[in-house]
Amino acid sequence: MIHQIRVIFGDTDQMGVVYYANYLRYFESARSALLRERGFSARGLVDQGVNFPVTEASCRYRRPARYEDLIDVHIAVADRGHARVRFVYSVRRGDELLAEGHTVHACVDTSGRPRRIPPDLRAAFMPGG
Amino acid sequence: MIHQIRVIFGDTDQMGVVYYANYLRYFESARSALLRERGFSARGLVDQGVNFPVTEASCRYRRPARYEDLIDVHIAVADRGHARVRFVYSVRRGDELLAEGHTVHACVDTSGRPRRIPPDLRAAFMPGG
Amino acid sequence: MIHQIRVIFGDTDQMGVVYYANYLRYFESARSALLRERGFSARGLVDQGVNFPVTEASCRYRRPARYEDLIDVHIAVADRGHARVRFVYSVRRGDELLAEGHTVHACVDTSGRPRRIPPDLRAAFMPGG
Amino acid sequence: MIHQIRVIFGDTDQMGVVYYANYLRYFESARSALLRERGFSARGLVDQGVNFPVTEASCRYRRPARYEDLIDVHIAVADRGHARVRFVYSVRRGDELLAEGHTVHACVDTSGRPRRIPPDLRAAFMPGG
Repeated sequence: MIHQIRVIFGDTDQMGVVYYANYLRYFESARSALLRERGFSARGLVDQGVNFPVTEASCRYRRPARYEDLIDVHIAVADRGHARVRFVYSVRRGDELLAEGHTVHACVDTSGRPRRIPPDLRAAFMPGG
Repeated sequence: MIHQIRVIFGDTDQMGVVYYANYLRYFESARSALLRERGFSARGLVDQGVNFPVTEASCRYRRPARYEDLIDVHIAVADRGHARVRFVYSVRRGDELLAEGHTVHACVDTSGRPRRIPPDLRAAFMPGG
Repeated sequence: MIHQIRVIFGDTDQMGVVYYANYLRYFESARSALLRERGFSARGLVDQGVNFPVTEASCRYRRPARYEDLIDVHIAVADRGHARVRFVYSVRRGDELLAEGHTVHACVDTSGRPRRIPPDLRAAFMPGG
Repeated sequence: MIHQIRVIFGDTDQMGVVYYANYLRYFESARSALLRERGFSARGLVDQGVNFPVTEASCRYRRPARYEDLIDVHIAVADRGHARVRFVYSVRRGDELLAEGHTVHACVDTSGRPRRIPPDLRAAFMPGG
């Protein structure tokens, strides 16, 4: 899936480029969009006691994104187990690759204990999708 | 003009609502969108040596915005002088008013000295627009 | 009370100065410090069902703060009622005034209904303090 | 080196814990503190045309940090070449490990071209230090 984001001033730093931490915000924005596209609401999941805290995240920065750029965040499920899921991301401006990264999320219940990903959600997280 | 924003997780705080400072980010996002809609690029203006630093900002918080909400930021030019412009904002979720605010911006050159707003931009900033 | 903050890169924007929304973060940082200094823990208050959502905030920006600046956030209680409190702030770098602002907070319970400020906290919020 | 940070409300998300992207802000805060401790000013370096854009970053999240926590960010130089440096970080609350990560930075000049790390800075970046 591709999720489009417009870079705002508040995302940049004094180097005139997007501050490195903000790519993780962009990744999150794409994750929520992916869930919605597949018929799930992240808020609905939280209400059902299904949480996906991040256990790891990484990003490689290739070229800077700048203020007002319209960038595409490509997201895909790379892999998912019974209680975890791994997403991969690439951030592009047209044909240019700006950044690549991944996140891993555990599925936990309201008290933070690992739990199985609900079957319908697991089906929606088919790798490659 | 109305600019739509999807609230992300990173915008919320532990009260489960959008953190108060983030409304100023939403305002900024709407300002850039307004400029683009009127044929200006904020980046282009910066390149021409036309900057609009904020000299004041305020927000009144009526009801909380929450994760995943799709909110409308209404922006209008309230008033503009030779070297300053005032925007007013309201943030709505459907019919509900969530927040209202304003910002005032000085027009300055690259070295930070006050300068006249370029005529075409001044025309585009017609109050009420 | 004076609360010191070191400006980080992530606080700046491409103008090379602190992004305007971040002053509200600085104000919050000073509020928490004020509470701690007076023997209260904001987290403890939340656990007791005492919340202080912001109902209004403003800031006037005088001079820019820059990366690595060590800035002083002066905070004082301007006024407090039975179920609300108003703080005023000024941000300084040495003798220079960088920004001034205020916030107003309602005191609400866990379900968001107005409630009285607990007496010991009300005493700690003596105006001018 | 250990750099202490107080978690603010604005750093948390609706899970009641520090939002994952903010660890990268904490890392940056520790990097600046490390430079200052060794007699360098990141701002001074930028003024000399020595920039250190991030080329990669990662974080593993072990336990959540919460509002008001006083956390220790441990930072060390893991490795440095002629034109790059790698830092490793761990974030602790007392004895508890909360997160671990790394960043890699290229040394570039004002136009973004790779350049050698100035010798005195290179000496200050002695691995293990």
